[in-house]
Amino acid sequence: MCQLLGMNSNKLASVQFSLEGFIRRGGETDEHRDGWGIAYFEGNAHQLLHDPLPASISPLAETMRRLPVRSRNIIAHIRKATQGAVELANCHPFVRELWGSSWVFAHNGNLAAHELPLQGRFSPVGTTDSEHAFCFMLQELERRFGMRQPNIEALHEALEELNRQIAALGSFNYLLSCGQGLFAHCSTSLYHVERAYPFAQASLIDCDLRVDFGRLNHLDDSICVVATKPLTTDERWIAFEAGELRYFRGGSFAPGGRLQQRLNLAI
Amino acid sequence: MCQLLGMNSNKLASVQFSLEGFIRRGGETDEHRDGWGIAYFEGNAHQLLHDPLPASISPLAETMRRLPVRSRNIIAHIRKATQGAVELANCHPFVRELWGSSWVFAHNGNLAAHELPLQGRFSPVGTTDSEHAFCFMLQELERRFGMRQPNIEALHEALEELNRQIAALGSFNYLLSCGQGLFAHCSTSLYHVERAYPFAQASLIDCDLRVDFGRLNHLDDSICVVATKPLTTDERWIAFEAGELRYFRGGSFAPGGRLQQRLNLAI
Repeated sequence: MCQLLGMNSNKLASVQFSLEGFIRRGGETDEHRDGWGIAYFEGNAHQLLHDPLPASISPLAETMRRLPVRSRNIIAHIRKATQGAVELANCHPFVRELWGSSWVFAHNGNLAAHELPLQGRFSPVGTTDSEHAFCFMLQELERRFGMRQPNIEALHEALEELNRQIAALGSFNYLLSCGQGLFAHCSTSLYHVERAYPFAQASLIDCDLRVDFGRLNHLDDSICVVATKPLTTDERWIAFEAGELRYFRGGSFAPGGRLQQRLNLAI
Repeated sequence: MCQLLGMNSNKLASVQFSLEGFIRRGGETDEHRDGWGIAYFEGNAHQLLHDPLPASISPLAETMRRLPVRSRNIIAHIRKATQGAVELANCHPFVRELWGSSWVFAHNGNLAAHELPLQGRFSPVGTTDSEHAFCFMLQELERRFGMRQPNIEALHEALEELNRQIAALGSFNYLLSCGQGLFAHCSTSLYHVERAYPFAQASLIDCDLRVDFGRLNHLDDSICVVATKPLTTDERWIAFEAGELRYFRGGSFAPGGRLQQRLNLAI
């Protein structure tokens, strides 16, 4: 199994604080030693750094900690291999282009993915169940919607159907983004925290680091962080229910009525 | 216009020496200030680093210079924008998956690419003529060969046909690889040098750096470097002819009879 970290923000934001704790789980404070990766968007384009070395000792991860990365959508992953060798081809996140956008996907879980038939439109480069499932998802989305990207409501519905189908084959926690928002699906374990005014202080679980978000953010900043397990001790991490798909946009999660307004917008 | 750098080697090899000179052309010794990128393969997977900053001042390029990267196939690019804004989406190399492999492409030239009809199978994320032409190439290769990757002879022939079609719309120097070999096509300017026993010394044109390849390599090492313009003063850079497509594999270029033997192998 693996761990996921996602971030969605209403303005360009840094993920360095959360990443500090997360990277340590890649071989230092936890057992996810079989590679790591991070993808972040600049506009509709993405940068992907991934490495089969443990995140805690990877030169590329060290680089990532020092780069002045600011983005609205970030997906990171640390791997504990279940299916597929420890090699670059099997490091998440995975990326494919569909509808002229880069789709970034990272998975935590274990699936009998060979039961999902691939017709060659999207094919795995590596040998993980995760990349196979991702290729299947994009194949089915394209089959359903053709050559044009649907609006967010239709996409949300289609993903919920696919989630039921795929999660029947194992555990299927994932993060998915094309740079405009962040989908997060929980099968067994996923949490999110919203950092907005009034900002609080937060202390990382995995290292001795504490930050006062009130000093770092503007009043109108809003950032959601999604993770397999909470990263801080003193924030309100909201657990997902099993089978739940959340969509984050503009740095917030809008369930119920607020979601309905949101769904009227194209993603 | 832009500049290209490619490397193909029979064993894992470093491209740091050539990259030292090349990166300086990204804003220091030459005018290609509008971004840069590099993709290198580890097995069939690729790592892609790209940045809209000039290579000569990009933190990511600085990182790349220090990473212990060793690969059999590398493609790098520095950009002087002709079509498309200076942004990450327009930085080469571009990557798409086809036949379960990652295909990496970088282009130097200027094309009336809108005349190449795209049917949606591969769509540009950015706004360059280059990415448009790359999407067209993959679309046409898939249309011709279906869901299975052809052997190298068939692929070589198909690319030559596409090159004639696309180069009729402008200048079309490019590098293309799926990690098993390196295709290089010249429209206006491209050179290659083969570094093999007996190894010589070489001095970079763009900075005061000299290396003795005899000290760095084993007797059976063989490396080909392809570039828009020669990178060193004291090596034999072999100019491409206009319209010529060269395929490098195992660190060497095998024209004529040797190519025929080579073409019997699957790539």
